[in-house]
Amino acid sequence: MEHPDRTTLIAPERVQAIRDSFARQEMMATIGARIDEIAIGRVVLSLDVSPRIGQQHGFVHAGATFALGDSAAGYSALSLMPEGSEVLTVEMKINLLAPATGRRLIAEGEVVKPGRRLIIARATVRAEAEDGSLRDVAILQGTMIPS
Amino acid sequence: MEHPDRTTLIAPERVQAIRDSFARQEMMATIGARIDEIAIGRVVLSLDVSPRIGQQHGFVHAGATFALGDSAAGYSALSLMPEGSEVLTVEMKINLLAPATGRRLIAEGEVVKPGRRLIIARATVRAEAEDGSLRDVAILQGTMIPS
Amino acid sequence: MEHPDRTTLIAPERVQAIRDSFARQEMMATIGARIDEIAIGRVVLSLDVSPRIGQQHGFVHAGATFALGDSAAGYSALSLMPEGSEVLTVEMKINLLAPATGRRLIAEGEVVKPGRRLIIARATVRAEAEDGSLRDVAILQGTMIPS
Amino acid sequence: MEHPDRTTLIAPERVQAIRDSFARQEMMATIGARIDEIAIGRVVLSLDVSPRIGQQHGFVHAGATFALGDSAAGYSALSLMPEGSEVLTVEMKINLLAPATGRRLIAEGEVVKPGRRLIIARATVRAEAEDGSLRDVAILQGTMIPS
Repeated sequence: MEHPDRTTLIAPERVQAIRDSFARQEMMATIGARIDEIAIGRVVLSLDVSPRIGQQHGFVHAGATFALGDSAAGYSALSLMPEGSEVLTVEMKINLLAPATGRRLIAEGEVVKPGRRLIIARATVRAEAEDGSLRDVAILQGTMIPS
Repeated sequence: MEHPDRTTLIAPERVQAIRDSFARQEMMATIGARIDEIAIGRVVLSLDVSPRIGQQHGFVHAGATFALGDSAAGYSALSLMPEGSEVLTVEMKINLLAPATGRRLIAEGEVVKPGRRLIIARATVRAEAEDGSLRDVAILQGTMIPS
Repeated sequence: MEHPDRTTLIAPERVQAIRDSFARQEMMATIGARIDEIAIGRVVLSLDVSPRIGQQHGFVHAGATFALGDSAAGYSALSLMPEGSEVLTVEMKINLLAPATGRRLIAEGEVVKPGRRLIIARATVRAEAEDGSLRDVAILQGTMIPS
Repeated sequence: MEHPDRTTLIAPERVQAIRDSFARQEMMATIGARIDEIAIGRVVLSLDVSPRIGQQHGFVHAGATFALGDSAAGYSALSLMPEGSEVLTVEMKINLLAPATGRRLIAEGEVVKPGRRLIIARATVRAEAEDGSLRDVAILQGTMIPS
């Protein structure tokens, strides 16, 4: 992958822009998501698993897993964009690898290919069990555009 | 498409099984979704747009649009399955066609290809404006398995 | 779907532009594909099934099915674009519904959502058996950009 | 990712089974593909770029890039399966990152999640320029089933 240079520190203004955008996404509060890490081309989000985002078997609903992974991918794209930008997902594909269960979901988004017109990004969503062990539960791959 | 025969009425027990499964998906209540129609191989869900499922521009978050469309597709698959079944999404792809805005989102799920091991399903999500006009906002295509 | 108006006849120059572009795609000759129909927002391609596009079970290889469907979708997009345009696929998802076998594969591409920056298109690939019966073998959904 | 143990050597019979299956896929000969490496859960294929797999701009057609990447992913799945198995792609998503141009395309397929019913796999396709430099041109993510 043509990863951006991760050794460069992200500017505090970019971090703030991502935090502001995230705070305006009420869906993130609705599913209980928070920002764990912001780096250049890489953003980690997580949420505490709760029944309100569950499906019929008691696992986390694919929609919540998707929302977390998609937002992590989107903010990884935003971390590479100029001041005043926002991004929109134009398409996203998710493969669900295992039931999302445990105490926490952690989504790591990263930019695969930056671009002026299109940004290709990925995310991996992991579930943290009660004992702290991690398991991959979903992978996402999709396209963002500046908006 | 090899659609199932829509002239056959769906058995009341299947309708009840879908309603029961839906009621156990707390994520559906969290995003405000309800069941509008249940037919053989076709299920329509909708939700009233509210700020709590919004993203940073005030549109509905892709995660909520996905959750509604994915569930409509999943229940269309469940409508074709024997008593006691449940379905799981194994993968789903969404293309977002236009910002999801308006007063209501309506997701129509349908089975493209039923099967014992895999069910291929689609969904179209439409936004209803204040004046009642409809606009396609997303299309989904994916795979379900019996669980 | 917000289909373009199919009652408008496509301009002969657009038809010629599509035929010229198709003729320059040597991959189409390599898999034996030809143009069957060109309309506004809809293009049909087909190929005669031959061992040279087969996979290990003797069915048509997913790569050939994809190439045919992707090109049908791409030319349906090109049919809506101004003189001198070309399109590129930026992403495409295929679900394979049934083994592609028989004497002929037919791919019908159509534009789901036209746009200046992005065009969303779909294709359905059908296999024609020796007795002339048709079976859906794949559906594709993806994004094109002008190039 | 829950990668299989790559330190275990792959059994010679599995290598031979993959080579035999590959030899039966005439589509691979049609696009000029060959096997470069076979390991447990990882297979690398490549092809020399030639006009016969080109599209209208002279780049490699998305269909050929897809065929190579899909087959690399499929054989990475097959490398993990018991004697006598074959795999079928049930769905695959490709994001095209850059025009596929140069002298050679190299596709590295790897299993993301093995399973008895479903195998999730990925591939990255790189283009090698005349000067030997490599550039990512496509990423694929999809699902295989035993057949």
